[in-house]
Amino acid sequence: MYAHLWATPELRTVFDEPARLQSWLDILAALARAQARVGIIPRQSADAITSLASIDKLDIDMAAAETRRTSHSTLGLIHAVQAILPEEAREHIYYGATVQDITDTWTALVMRRVGAIVWRDLRTLEDLLLGLASQHRSTVMVGRTHGQPGAPITFGFKAASWADEVRRHLERLRDGRDRWLVGQFGGAVGVLGFFGDDGLRVRAEFCAELGLGEPTISWLTARDRVVEFAHVLAMVSSTLARIGNEVYELQRPEIGELREPPIPGGVSSITMPHKRNPERSEHLDTLARLVRGSTGVLLEGMVQTHERDGRGWKAEWIAFPEVCLLTGAGLGLAIEVLDGLEVDTDRMAANVIAQSGSITSERVLASLSSSLGKHRAQALLQEALSESGAAAPRGLELDELTAAAAADLGPAVASAVAMTDLVVERGRAARGNESETWA
Amino acid sequence: MYAHLWATPELRTVFDEPARLQSWLDILAALARAQARVGIIPRQSADAITSLASIDKLDIDMAAAETRRTSHSTLGLIHAVQAILPEEAREHIYYGATVQDITDTWTALVMRRVGAIVWRDLRTLEDLLLGLASQHRSTVMVGRTHGQPGAPITFGFKAASWADEVRRHLERLRDGRDRWLVGQFGGAVGVLGFFGDDGLRVRAEFCAELGLGEPTISWLTARDRVVEFAHVLAMVSSTLARIGNEVYELQRPEIGELREPPIPGGVSSITMPHKRNPERSEHLDTLARLVRGSTGVLLEGMVQTHERDGRGWKAEWIAFPEVCLLTGAGLGLAIEVLDGLEVDTDRMAANVIAQSGSITSERVLASLSSSLGKHRAQALLQEALSESGAAAPRGLELDELTAAAAADLGPAVASAVAMTDLVVERGRAARGNESETWA
Amino acid sequence: MYAHLWATPELRTVFDEPARLQSWLDILAALARAQARVGIIPRQSADAITSLASIDKLDIDMAAAETRRTSHSTLGLIHAVQAILPEEAREHIYYGATVQDITDTWTALVMRRVGAIVWRDLRTLEDLLLGLASQHRSTVMVGRTHGQPGAPITFGFKAASWADEVRRHLERLRDGRDRWLVGQFGGAVGVLGFFGDDGLRVRAEFCAELGLGEPTISWLTARDRVVEFAHVLAMVSSTLARIGNEVYELQRPEIGELREPPIPGGVSSITMPHKRNPERSEHLDTLARLVRGSTGVLLEGMVQTHERDGRGWKAEWIAFPEVCLLTGAGLGLAIEVLDGLEVDTDRMAANVIAQSGSITSERVLASLSSSLGKHRAQALLQEALSESGAAAPRGLELDELTAAAAADLGPAVASAVAMTDLVVERGRAARGNESETWA
Amino acid sequence: MYAHLWATPELRTVFDEPARLQSWLDILAALARAQARVGIIPRQSADAITSLASIDKLDIDMAAAETRRTSHSTLGLIHAVQAILPEEAREHIYYGATVQDITDTWTALVMRRVGAIVWRDLRTLEDLLLGLASQHRSTVMVGRTHGQPGAPITFGFKAASWADEVRRHLERLRDGRDRWLVGQFGGAVGVLGFFGDDGLRVRAEFCAELGLGEPTISWLTARDRVVEFAHVLAMVSSTLARIGNEVYELQRPEIGELREPPIPGGVSSITMPHKRNPERSEHLDTLARLVRGSTGVLLEGMVQTHERDGRGWKAEWIAFPEVCLLTGAGLGLAIEVLDGLEVDTDRMAANVIAQSGSITSERVLASLSSSLGKHRAQALLQEALSESGAAAPRGLELDELTAAAAADLGPAVASAVAMTDLVVERGRAARGNESETWA
Repeated sequence: MYAHLWATPELRTVFDEPARLQSWLDILAALARAQARVGIIPRQSADAITSLASIDKLDIDMAAAETRRTSHSTLGLIHAVQAILPEEAREHIYYGATVQDITDTWTALVMRRVGAIVWRDLRTLEDLLLGLASQHRSTVMVGRTHGQPGAPITFGFKAASWADEVRRHLERLRDGRDRWLVGQFGGAVGVLGFFGDDGLRVRAEFCAELGLGEPTISWLTARDRVVEFAHVLAMVSSTLARIGNEVYELQRPEIGELREPPIPGGVSSITMPHKRNPERSEHLDTLARLVRGSTGVLLEGMVQTHERDGRGWKAEWIAFPEVCLLTGAGLGLAIEVLDGLEVDTDRMAANVIAQSGSITSERVLASLSSSLGKHRAQALLQEALSESGAAAPRGLELDELTAAAAADLGPAVASAVAMTDLVVERGRAARGNESETWA
Repeated sequence: MYAHLWATPELRTVFDEPARLQSWLDILAALARAQARVGIIPRQSADAITSLASIDKLDIDMAAAETRRTSHSTLGLIHAVQAILPEEAREHIYYGATVQDITDTWTALVMRRVGAIVWRDLRTLEDLLLGLASQHRSTVMVGRTHGQPGAPITFGFKAASWADEVRRHLERLRDGRDRWLVGQFGGAVGVLGFFGDDGLRVRAEFCAELGLGEPTISWLTARDRVVEFAHVLAMVSSTLARIGNEVYELQRPEIGELREPPIPGGVSSITMPHKRNPERSEHLDTLARLVRGSTGVLLEGMVQTHERDGRGWKAEWIAFPEVCLLTGAGLGLAIEVLDGLEVDTDRMAANVIAQSGSITSERVLASLSSSLGKHRAQALLQEALSESGAAAPRGLELDELTAAAAADLGPAVASAVAMTDLVVERGRAARGNESETWA
Repeated sequence: MYAHLWATPELRTVFDEPARLQSWLDILAALARAQARVGIIPRQSADAITSLASIDKLDIDMAAAETRRTSHSTLGLIHAVQAILPEEAREHIYYGATVQDITDTWTALVMRRVGAIVWRDLRTLEDLLLGLASQHRSTVMVGRTHGQPGAPITFGFKAASWADEVRRHLERLRDGRDRWLVGQFGGAVGVLGFFGDDGLRVRAEFCAELGLGEPTISWLTARDRVVEFAHVLAMVSSTLARIGNEVYELQRPEIGELREPPIPGGVSSITMPHKRNPERSEHLDTLARLVRGSTGVLLEGMVQTHERDGRGWKAEWIAFPEVCLLTGAGLGLAIEVLDGLEVDTDRMAANVIAQSGSITSERVLASLSSSLGKHRAQALLQEALSESGAAAPRGLELDELTAAAAADLGPAVASAVAMTDLVVERGRAARGNESETWA
Repeated sequence: MYAHLWATPELRTVFDEPARLQSWLDILAALARAQARVGIIPRQSADAITSLASIDKLDIDMAAAETRRTSHSTLGLIHAVQAILPEEAREHIYYGATVQDITDTWTALVMRRVGAIVWRDLRTLEDLLLGLASQHRSTVMVGRTHGQPGAPITFGFKAASWADEVRRHLERLRDGRDRWLVGQFGGAVGVLGFFGDDGLRVRAEFCAELGLGEPTISWLTARDRVVEFAHVLAMVSSTLARIGNEVYELQRPEIGELREPPIPGGVSSITMPHKRNPERSEHLDTLARLVRGSTGVLLEGMVQTHERDGRGWKAEWIAFPEVCLLTGAGLGLAIEVLDGLEVDTDRMAANVIAQSGSITSERVLASLSSSLGKHRAQALLQEALSESGAAAPRGLELDELTAAAAADLGPAVASAVAMTDLVVERGRAARGNESETWA
């Protein structure tokens, strides 16, 4: 009933058991074709495997029962395929491979699919953010540090800061792609001993069949690719949580500058019917926490021993899908939140006025600095603005300076606008120069 | 007394308080020069600041006392510099900047120095590993999975797997460099309001003075750069731990295939004088654990609120140096361990013979597979080799097959050698095409 | 197909969706009865709710659809119950409660069930360990530090160290029980404003109905109970991983002192049919990694804001069940491994002889210490045993001393036996003084 | 210069190198006295060691140099003591012990000192919180869920929720004390083989000398005690962060209900002189993050191998002091913040009025529920209060109901007051029944 909180339907179709098993079968078929091409098994066997290795043709209950009986991760599935293969092809499925060849190659294929979704969604998000940045490039609002109102910014600047971070994630995805999307084919201990001199030829054909890169050397216990991919997703999730938390805070009615869009028919609170909770924004933080937890498990898994090490590897079986599913759920939510984001520019303006003391103090300091020197000005202001500081030092016409600064916030946000424009310009240029699809 | 366990002397000189304060002073001087160039402060002030902002000219005790009195992170230091500046320059230090401008820019400079050290040490490590891979490309040894002897590999293959992982870290450092090495200059809330229209010009000059890139937009609450850098270091540390654990395990006298070099004069155990413990190898794992812990803190810190957020940012003050120091300590140790690594090829050969049943079973299976079919062969072998399986199935001349496989392990490791050669060749080519220095 | 790796069937029946929904319905029925007793709703409504709030009477598809439509966590379920309640009772279900009242109370009920399972399984485990300790109290084996053979221990001592740790977990479960097993009933913001003066009376009846303790104050944002429970489970999982890793290491054929029991019909490796992998022991480590990751998420969740905070709370929805399920899976596995653990005492004895130099050095040092002084003896031994130390110092009759020490290992393990006996005696006494069931 | 951010001076005196070394020397002296009592070394040697093992009598530079030369953790210190011992006592220091006996026993002593500080500070904090709870038991304020104003609470209720959590930490410290405060004495592999039949007698005397409990069995690789202690501190830190974040949020001038006390002479922001940042409240969150990171490292360290395992143990050397120092720093800060906490009751009242719609909706719902039924009332209110819901359903006199509810908030907070009183009463009773000191 709550599955939608933790994944998108699209990503479920990548990780759900039938999809995963079918992907394994596809990998086995690709292996058979590769081996047929090298001459290790007959072409007919490869054809039979390719046409019959299909989840809807198998007896899945038998596969599950055999898995439990043999305590082996793939043997159940193999037996179920063999049961429907012609006699002469039965010995040619899963020939000389190991479980990890299949599951690691599957992981690479999953990185390809998930990476493509993340790429697409990040670009959609960037587009929304650049739009907000552009539209609100000079919408002045209160800047806040340590939770306290400070000098003014523009809402465009805030959105541009998010867009800029998203752009760097896109760069990371671009940089890492070829490092990640490689197949695995190593056999018992990674050296393909089963195949004698044919090992690398089979590997090359196998990876080519799947459109994956070929690793220089087996990576059974070299898990950095998976970890790096997860790190990028964890950073993506964290960016989404940063955005979500900002909406959450600025949606407080005491501030009221942003509001996530309402859900038609949605009920925030049964006991308090008036409420409109920023639950999707909040959920972005929840998702990021869980992603971080699983990412830590993956990082720990890099410390592997010998030529295969189930300890860290099997932890991936749980942690890696979670990182992907939860990040994807976050991207979906973030797009929804930002697409309908309500920006209350009236409230922003009102808050600027309400906080005009805070808002102008950096500019007042700048004015005073040119006459008094900056540190002296700072000390005087500090004194004058502290609660005890009733008597402003003589000659310090604070009210006039404040009024003047408040009357024209242009200089205060000039660089905000300039930086925002830079982000928009560079972001759009980058978008123009890259593919809409990732892999 | 134990400082050497947790950092190298070289890295201490980056992070120790005097070095950090001097770096902050250099940043303040660069800022003054930048501002003089834009015409915001007089050239003479910038000159005075440049020549006097030196840790050995300041009254550090006064700085510390002022820091505590003001509860402000840099004001103490500023006051100490002002005390020795000529009257007319006093107001021109730290003009319009904030603490975080200084500390974030310092972080970028630190990433430049630490990154360069990591780059250099990783390349040294890679060189050692490629050397081992090359030298032992056909040194057959027992491969192990799940802690159990399996088919044979070569020691060169093992070293090549490490080298290949190290090479990917070098790629990551290369890919990320320009993303990371950017200055920070944002003022109160990131928009340089103090400077009106001059903001971006000052920023450009400031970054140029320090040889840093210029960010598109302030990154006061966009911490992904720091996190990504830490992630790379955490992955580096994990690779070192993987190597360390392998030495630790293979140094067990029951296995005896590797030994870390002895420390002249070193004492492993007082109560057991005969012992030679793999304590440096072991320590690589200790270091990686601590790095992972601190990296998790940094990742959590990406979720920032508003325009400055002390919660995650100040956690960086502790966690970021730890990641750097501990990773650096690990690199130093790993180089030491690998440089003098004792590879006991006799013992490797003896273990291969001792485990000849395990070692040959993949090849025996391959032989039988061609006659019996793979799955049937596997089932028969499973039966014959299980403890109860006294009676080997008729016609299964296991002893002969095993003897034949043992007599020529060449086919079993042919691909190991080929993969090793590939790693060495590509690693050397990459080394030839890149700079010895990083930044 | 792989569900058995990550949970026991028994624990699945606690957490699977139907069971969870039924438990929620039971809580709603208990609430209705409590409210009827206080006179807030009619007795007949409570009776109707009690008899109809049953998962097999509801239209679950409708509940799921309503959950998605309202974006509210329990409203779908409520609507489905209302659909089958008599008209006059429909308004009396879920009266004045919130989602979190239901889910937190469910969490307390789950802690009661899971805690009882963990208590039971830990006691079974302790029984097995005390049995091993007792049986092998004087089975001498090689002690190992830093992976290197050292002075002798007994296998009973090793098992007793595990048993002692398990006993402390039992103490923790005992100490924490009353702190954890309390209901939650707070309404909108934790102060039961809906109920005016009746709030605490309803709460008292509600908790009593469920057999739970009553909290002093609502704990909507005070999550330490859940975290503490998870911490105990994380420690339990870590103990199991410690045991698992020990079996994994000692099952190396080069050592061969322990072996986890074979799985009838099980297949360790397809490509290497001879292998017998310690996969269950290994899996104990995998499980502990995942538990640690989720426990960290829960700990982070303690830092809540205001009167309800979805960020940490909803992360519990994923992380808390995982901690329970994975720990339970570990306990089941550990009992299986230890129940059939093969202790190869012949191999232990052979290894003691093979390592007699190591084994005896502490005793040789003890002998020499009484004549030469300990530090002088240590320095001499260090010298004599180092590789270069061909010439043993005059008068240092090492061979005789070693032979004498090896001839009688009794003194070397006298305290091992004594400590083992203490653990067994105290463990058995504690078992006799406590209930077999937890709650 | 920033040391005060990360530890209290009191805690530094526990962990600083001179203090640690002195504590080690005290442990060595206690060991000598214990051994003299059992008759293993002469009484005179024990006396000499007791009187000379003093940090201010040693040549610390020599100790450090020897540490580096021998690569051994304590040998340098031992040599420095021997250098000043009389000839006849030199062989009797550190007799049959190992590094870990010393450092683990030191850890137990540290837990005793740190636990006592934490106990004392938590009780001080509880006293402040009970005082706030008591004073503000009926100070009505806005309750907030998901960052949005909801039904009213009292500030006393909020403080009581903190106090209640602190009380549970005190219980945890009480429950765990005897489990944690035990010495370590195991020798080479934990079985005291050096001492033959005398092992347990020496251990008993040694622990008694130090006022520590005696373990049933050596805990060289059973680290659950240290982990459990750290878990309690991590939970304490998280509670402090919860309090800190609440102050941080409620100090927003847009809310303005709480303010941490000003620091006399403190400067919040140089560029924005008006600001008064909640930096200590904020820092409580920073500290908790770091504590969590180190606690995770300690938990991972429970998974030890064999009889000594440097990997997790040495990670404790860094992580354990950090957990203690940072938690202590947090306690000091929290006491400071709460002792001078400014509670703006006028603003609380004003916010209640400003949010009267939110504040009263639970009571309006309660009123309507009795006539309309709860779910119907909820649906009607939901409709009426949604933005589109201009036309309130007929007969739903919302304005009157709201006004009535607002006129008397007594029923809305009746249970808040009752729960608060319960917490205060039970907290005070518990305080009366326990010792002011922990150990």
